[in-house]
Amino acid sequence: MRNKREVLASAPQLLLDNGAELYSLLDSTSSDAPCGGTEETTTGGERLRAALNLEIPVIVINDSPLKAIVENQHGVGQSAMESFLRITNLMPQGKRFLVIGYGWCGRGIAHYARGLGASVVVAEVDEIKALEAAMDGFAVVELPTAAQDVSVVITATGRPNVFTAEAIDRLADGAILANAGHFDREIDVDYLRAIAVQREDLDAGIESYSFEDGRRIVLLTGGRMFNLGGRAPKGNSIESMDLGFSLQALCLERIATHPTGLCPGPQPVPDDINRHLAAAMVRRLSG
Amino acid sequence: MRNKREVLASAPQLLLDNGAELYSLLDSTSSDAPCGGTEETTTGGERLRAALNLEIPVIVINDSPLKAIVENQHGVGQSAMESFLRITNLMPQGKRFLVIGYGWCGRGIAHYARGLGASVVVAEVDEIKALEAAMDGFAVVELPTAAQDVSVVITATGRPNVFTAEAIDRLADGAILANAGHFDREIDVDYLRAIAVQREDLDAGIESYSFEDGRRIVLLTGGRMFNLGGRAPKGNSIESMDLGFSLQALCLERIATHPTGLCPGPQPVPDDINRHLAAAMVRRLSG
Amino acid sequence: MRNKREVLASAPQLLLDNGAELYSLLDSTSSDAPCGGTEETTTGGERLRAALNLEIPVIVINDSPLKAIVENQHGVGQSAMESFLRITNLMPQGKRFLVIGYGWCGRGIAHYARGLGASVVVAEVDEIKALEAAMDGFAVVELPTAAQDVSVVITATGRPNVFTAEAIDRLADGAILANAGHFDREIDVDYLRAIAVQREDLDAGIESYSFEDGRRIVLLTGGRMFNLGGRAPKGNSIESMDLGFSLQALCLERIATHPTGLCPGPQPVPDDINRHLAAAMVRRLSG
Amino acid sequence: MRNKREVLASAPQLLLDNGAELYSLLDSTSSDAPCGGTEETTTGGERLRAALNLEIPVIVINDSPLKAIVENQHGVGQSAMESFLRITNLMPQGKRFLVIGYGWCGRGIAHYARGLGASVVVAEVDEIKALEAAMDGFAVVELPTAAQDVSVVITATGRPNVFTAEAIDRLADGAILANAGHFDREIDVDYLRAIAVQREDLDAGIESYSFEDGRRIVLLTGGRMFNLGGRAPKGNSIESMDLGFSLQALCLERIATHPTGLCPGPQPVPDDINRHLAAAMVRRLSG
Repeated sequence: MRNKREVLASAPQLLLDNGAELYSLLDSTSSDAPCGGTEETTTGGERLRAALNLEIPVIVINDSPLKAIVENQHGVGQSAMESFLRITNLMPQGKRFLVIGYGWCGRGIAHYARGLGASVVVAEVDEIKALEAAMDGFAVVELPTAAQDVSVVITATGRPNVFTAEAIDRLADGAILANAGHFDREIDVDYLRAIAVQREDLDAGIESYSFEDGRRIVLLTGGRMFNLGGRAPKGNSIESMDLGFSLQALCLERIATHPTGLCPGPQPVPDDINRHLAAAMVRRLSG
Repeated sequence: MRNKREVLASAPQLLLDNGAELYSLLDSTSSDAPCGGTEETTTGGERLRAALNLEIPVIVINDSPLKAIVENQHGVGQSAMESFLRITNLMPQGKRFLVIGYGWCGRGIAHYARGLGASVVVAEVDEIKALEAAMDGFAVVELPTAAQDVSVVITATGRPNVFTAEAIDRLADGAILANAGHFDREIDVDYLRAIAVQREDLDAGIESYSFEDGRRIVLLTGGRMFNLGGRAPKGNSIESMDLGFSLQALCLERIATHPTGLCPGPQPVPDDINRHLAAAMVRRLSG
Repeated sequence: MRNKREVLASAPQLLLDNGAELYSLLDSTSSDAPCGGTEETTTGGERLRAALNLEIPVIVINDSPLKAIVENQHGVGQSAMESFLRITNLMPQGKRFLVIGYGWCGRGIAHYARGLGASVVVAEVDEIKALEAAMDGFAVVELPTAAQDVSVVITATGRPNVFTAEAIDRLADGAILANAGHFDREIDVDYLRAIAVQREDLDAGIESYSFEDGRRIVLLTGGRMFNLGGRAPKGNSIESMDLGFSLQALCLERIATHPTGLCPGPQPVPDDINRHLAAAMVRRLSG
Repeated sequence: MRNKREVLASAPQLLLDNGAELYSLLDSTSSDAPCGGTEETTTGGERLRAALNLEIPVIVINDSPLKAIVENQHGVGQSAMESFLRITNLMPQGKRFLVIGYGWCGRGIAHYARGLGASVVVAEVDEIKALEAAMDGFAVVELPTAAQDVSVVITATGRPNVFTAEAIDRLADGAILANAGHFDREIDVDYLRAIAVQREDLDAGIESYSFEDGRRIVLLTGGRMFNLGGRAPKGNSIESMDLGFSLQALCLERIATHPTGLCPGPQPVPDDINRHLAAAMVRRLSG
């Protein structure tokens, strides 16, 4: 595999980047700059917006509403529950799940957890989303207090340190912690490790932490995305991957064939591409 | 009851209007014009935006996201199914419901119909919303073709002539037509009446139309909002009404106490009022 | 309408009874006794079994498993929720429903209440049914303690005095009581009335009882089957009635055409008739 | 590990058998015969009933209603969907699942598949169970015709050759076959293998069979219980195993302490033990 500078030295006409690794090294004003490209991640898109002064169009794939619907809401919701069952081998029945965050991912997880028999409560700081959760039939609770009577915690906010030291202190013996958000900092794993007197690997992706007060807390996949982890995970569903590749292909084609129709800089997937792909997917799902 | 001009002649300081009936008669540049007011309906809000050059702030209540969530999605969804059961006395089981429109109202209706045992398909022209419907597990179908094998049609689009003559022509014998959208023109009732050879009132809110080809089609509540009609309807739920009144009261208070903090013309409910009320409602629902 | 003795004096060949009113006056050993008949109710069937020494076959319709599935589980479940919405005009969201009894009726009510957004807990004295409720995702609670934190109580046990004075004493202000069981003695309405200092009719089927301690308790339809009561109820669904009439007709035909193939006395619907009708209904529901 | 005859030669006082392997070698009239024992499986129970003339009590664990509820309905339903997601990495959305059998296992699978977004139809030869499926909102279809338009077939009947050669012939290209019943003969795998022109291992537990007509059919885990198979399966849930061990322990205790209170021969779990354990499990699930 060639390194990043070698990739750019080959004077590619189109770039397909992940995390803005290539764009950050690129002189987009150069005469042999690519005519444009795509960026897979939201984080890469933010990096492009914040610091880089690109002269070429870059379409940020992950901001497409199709990804939100297919991958975040349904894909993560399903993989979270598949992973919970696969990793822990526990039944959801009689367990109180606390889902933190009621964005696209959180609402998917909450609904699929309830569909599998769990009792689900939701914590959400945005008042409008919290109202949606309540109207969808989930009791809305407040952190850190709510940590004290839950069996399973799943974070899905995209923000760091959401399940704090104060919340960890209140967990009941046997509680299970899992994160489904992109970053592995939603649960304060450092604090968990710092106060534990013993750590034990129970199985692939299952660590048990014992505290001085006798409680044991279980952490799944080290606080990283548990819905893609544990023993023998398969990652995102085939349909999610298909969708991502289709978005990439159609956006790159657009840049290659209509470069002047796009303004320079990072930008969302063109609306007509979103609608074209959505319609194709609907036909396939309803056919 | 005084007429509209008399109301305005009393030089009110605040107006609470429905359909922009008062605002359209008002000289908002006059020295004794009210300091502002509210408008209940989306339609009134559009009228204000389109034609009136208001110099005073008018908050359009119905555009609040809280109304969309509480009243449109859940309120209409529940009242549609309550009304279907109350008016027809039929079981949803084994009946194929076609819900037209997957906006706030349509998705509520589709979910509650499925929850009560119906088989539900969705028609939606917006590709992104159609994808949401398909991922939520509803087959997405196309009009007018899809009309031919459904038992119950419920329109919820807010647009006129959605269930057209072509669709009516394809309906199977015994199909039931109902509209849950604000206006009574979603189903082409005129066509239905024009081609029928006989019309019969089966019960309150239930008309049966017989066609020359032998088919009989049932229309609920004359194509007007069936979820608020039929025998002994109670209208919107107490919680929906409470929400509307609370929004009205807080918005009028804002105008009375901070008139200069608001720009002139029609505008949405201030974000902080939405959040304040959403939080209060969440506490009440989860308490 | 002729009285019961006149009916019998006409020497009918087949009887269709409700509550064993006719059978209890009949001399089934007489030469002009009918060749048999049907009894609609379970109660009538018990009366026949307990006290009457019938020499002719009587098929008890209500014991058919088809009635349990169609009418008790789904019919009562749907009509209970339709009636709750119709009578109270309240949203189920954020309300804690206590369903008492997890037999055919209770499980239907619990599932449909959850499907409409309520939070549902179940009380059930039979340990096996209680386990089914818990595995179906409902918290199982104990009476009378559980009465203290519920918004709505629905009894569906078929037994008297299930919601006792002790339970009523623990209800929170504003709690709503409703019975969906056949008899109107599941809630101790006498106690409720005895201790109330004031009784108010809020609307058709809604009585409010005020207690000395300031609490107000709402009773729906006087403790009688609220799922068939309130303003403008339509009774059992058309499909339920169709099923009942079909069972009656086929059983009477069997008695008329094969009287010697049936043993004397009360007996369940012949298995082949149940299966024949079930298959016909499945074809209709899935067609 | 000692062989079976050695086990018996040690003159055990209690036996815990699986498949009646030990009982079939036992002389239960001998003076040093055990005072009784348990048999785990339904099959072993049938073997005991059919052929063996036991003089000692043997409690058949698997016939307990608790196993039906916890393990068959919910355990198999959850593990079937977990396995479908884990093995295939496909989304259930837009896929038509045909669940064959609507007994305890089948109804669990059908409900959990629908809860995860699949479109589900059911085939069931028992008319009463078929009516339950239809009233639960599933279209009931007939084999082999129904095989022609499904994406995924899951058998759960406990009977051999349920998905026949005729049904296989009608499958559409890409259909997926899986069995969740105890025996691996529900799908006619021999026929599938006989007519295939090519067989390919796509991944652990995923075989693809190509036919002369160009169709490819996918078979999961060779037609054996796919809900316990594929890469890295964990088997029955911890709660299912706990329940089985508890039933074993309590039944063996009963035999040891009250041997004369039980009649000789195979028999179900005593009712009081079922109720005692059900109550304990309900407390744990609702605690």
